[in-house]
Amino acid sequence: MKITELVLTPVAFSDPPLLNAMGVHEPFALRGVLEMVCEDGVIGLGESYGDLAFLDQVRKVIPALPGLDVFDLPGLRRRVARALGDAVFADEHGLTGGFSVSKTLASVYSLFEVAALDAQGRCLGRPVVDLLGGRARDAVDFSAYLFYKYGAHVGAAEDSWGEVLTPEALVGEARRMVDEYGFGSIKLKGGVLPPQQEVEGVLALAEAFGSHPLRIDPNAAWTPETSFDVAEKLEGVLEYLEDPTPGIEGMARVAERASMPLATNMCVVRFADVAPAFRAGAVGVVLSDHHFWGGLRDTQALSVTCETFGVGLSMHSNSHLGISLAAMVHVAAATPHLTYACDTHWPWKAADVIEPGALEFREGAVAVPDGPGLGVVLDRDALAKAHEDYVRCGQTKRDDVTYMRRFVPDFEPNTARW
Amino acid sequence: MKITELVLTPVAFSDPPLLNAMGVHEPFALRGVLEMVCEDGVIGLGESYGDLAFLDQVRKVIPALPGLDVFDLPGLRRRVARALGDAVFADEHGLTGGFSVSKTLASVYSLFEVAALDAQGRCLGRPVVDLLGGRARDAVDFSAYLFYKYGAHVGAAEDSWGEVLTPEALVGEARRMVDEYGFGSIKLKGGVLPPQQEVEGVLALAEAFGSHPLRIDPNAAWTPETSFDVAEKLEGVLEYLEDPTPGIEGMARVAERASMPLATNMCVVRFADVAPAFRAGAVGVVLSDHHFWGGLRDTQALSVTCETFGVGLSMHSNSHLGISLAAMVHVAAATPHLTYACDTHWPWKAADVIEPGALEFREGAVAVPDGPGLGVVLDRDALAKAHEDYVRCGQTKRDDVTYMRRFVPDFEPNTARW
Ligand SMILES: [Mg+2]
Ligand SMILES: [Mg+2]
Repeated sequence: MKITELVLTPVAFSDPPLLNAMGVHEPFALRGVLEMVCEDGVIGLGESYGDLAFLDQVRKVIPALPGLDVFDLPGLRRRVARALGDAVFADEHGLTGGFSVSKTLASVYSLFEVAALDAQGRCLGRPVVDLLGGRARDAVDFSAYLFYKYGAHVGAAEDSWGEVLTPEALVGEARRMVDEYGFGSIKLKGGVLPPQQEVEGVLALAEAFGSHPLRIDPNAAWTPETSFDVAEKLEGVLEYLEDPTPGIEGMARVAERASMPLATNMCVVRFADVAPAFRAGAVGVVLSDHHFWGGLRDTQALSVTCETFGVGLSMHSNSHLGISLAAMVHVAAATPHLTYACDTHWPWKAADVIEPGALEFREGAVAVPDGPGLGVVLDRDALAKAHEDYVRCGQTKRDDVTYMRRFVPDFEPNTARW
Repeated sequence: MKITELVLTPVAFSDPPLLNAMGVHEPFALRGVLEMVCEDGVIGLGESYGDLAFLDQVRKVIPALPGLDVFDLPGLRRRVARALGDAVFADEHGLTGGFSVSKTLASVYSLFEVAALDAQGRCLGRPVVDLLGGRARDAVDFSAYLFYKYGAHVGAAEDSWGEVLTPEALVGEARRMVDEYGFGSIKLKGGVLPPQQEVEGVLALAEAFGSHPLRIDPNAAWTPETSFDVAEKLEGVLEYLEDPTPGIEGMARVAERASMPLATNMCVVRFADVAPAFRAGAVGVVLSDHHFWGGLRDTQALSVTCETFGVGLSMHSNSHLGISLAAMVHVAAATPHLTYACDTHWPWKAADVIEPGALEFREGAVAVPDGPGLGVVLDRDALAKAHEDYVRCGQTKRDDVTYMRRFVPDFEPNTARW
């Protein structure tokens, strides 16, 4: 079944002012939605980053794909590589490790691979999970993803979550999220407040949600020394400590002294990082993300490599819509060695591009959709609306830093600042 | 599509008196052929070892599988594990590493996984290669597999290959095999003659086949010191040196001094061996084998783990028939990181259980069969004949040692004997 046409639609959707080490989320989050049109009218869907730098790379590849058999994933990878040359997509927000040719290739390929697998599944009448080896689980556990946040965007009214900058507000945010979605574990995005305040936040969560495993992710905002200190104060409280400090060497130093495993989506972001990080004992948990790990099949391969070296696997999330959630659910369901609940920004988004109903959270988990392929259906009206929002908002890249300066004029992002 | 019935047929086929470190091949090689019957009459085929100890483990699993969805490979693995408990299949010939619960599970699961993937492909009308991610290559290169051999089995007439115990005879054997199959690389099974004689054999091959990459595999019959010596004498001649000496530690010692990479199917035979072997720098090439590495999907996962750590991948072979060759071709075609021609015993066998035509060697390579699933069709008359031979020959396990004593009464198999 040959690919006949590809349609890439950049979209934007409202995002609350969520804080992280690099600043604060802008009023809109961007994504790119891909429709891979095949013979017989089958359409496969993909979703990934919406930054212009990324979309430009995707657009370079599109003319090279018509005529390719949708089952020929190695051929797809070759065509992507040929079209990109030595291009580098710089995900400038800096929250998912460095840039490289291989990471750019893996990211762009992933968007097309997901759409191809969706098309394959629709063509064969089977869910994508079956093309990935079948269900290791029927539903995938996700973690509540807490953020410190401002109450309102610049010039806007307060959102329904309000300001969250204290342990009490954090517990309130967690309560709402756990009540609405049933999450069984909780992650806090840290690197925002001085470390001692974030420790107090986590301890407040531990007191309020005793049975929920907890994590904190300061996006490498701490020095190794601060990381030791936090690790000591949160001993027995965290299931893992995510990216406390930058780099494999720094992580290895912290790992040697921390009682809990260290997780990362910053110092191990491509296969070339695996050997040095594992050899250094820098990480106990890799946070996979099919969007930059080369798609669903490579995410599974990463899982086996982790299992082989006794390293756990969890899943990273950026702001995303339903096509990406469906892809995350299919690959997670088909991956036996997935040792923690996955991250998702799902509760923070206000709109989507898919018809509702296919993806429901029950007790913090999402069941694998029933239909063929990814099992989600594009809502063309919603897609058109989200594209209008993209055009109207004028954003072309994620830039938490510049927007943060509207709140804190002298803000400087800085890894290992504390 | 549910599994309704499983039929296991042990078969035997004539095998020449091929020599190795453990003795000599008996008059018949044994295999087990599995038919996985599914709803709608779809039948998936699998092939693996025919030793009674292995068949007994397979027979424990069979009653647990009817009712299972043929796409539910994780469920298949769970049922296999539950049925086997902590059983250990002892592949007593000793040529593929030690025994373990995990290796037994991986071996038994593999037989069923291959049959399930064949059934999936037939159900979907797609070749297995497409279920494994598509074609990284359209045809798979194989290596000529030379053996020292006796001219005839005990009490039998000389076979068409005759006795091969000298460099001249070896070159003649290679010439016939290369002429008939077009192999572009050559492997010699060593560990049979004193090392200096085998070095002379390899040098004779190098002189006769200058452009063909060469390998020798003494099945760990040498000490590390002998291995150093051979490696030095064959510097610039071998593409890799396979299992010169036993164990990860010994291999690591040799690897440190040898100029060519060391390959293994003896000291890395399950995922638990990977980390210690890679950490020790013991191997430069892993010889995958879906029959004991947990099937086609796990073989691909092994490949990614190897690639991640900068280790090459080739493919091991035991005596096998067409169902196994088809499985080897599909997985090799779908595995981008396969850095050497694969091994096969194909030219040594005199019979098969599949209809001819699907698997042809051209210039040493086998094209992926066109049909759905594995693309091979069971020849029921040939299967019945091969099963009769199994019953008639009375062999129930591979035992090269005992048979060798019919030729050399005081023969003692011994690793690192030289
Ligand atoms: Mg993170
Ligand atoms: Mg070998």
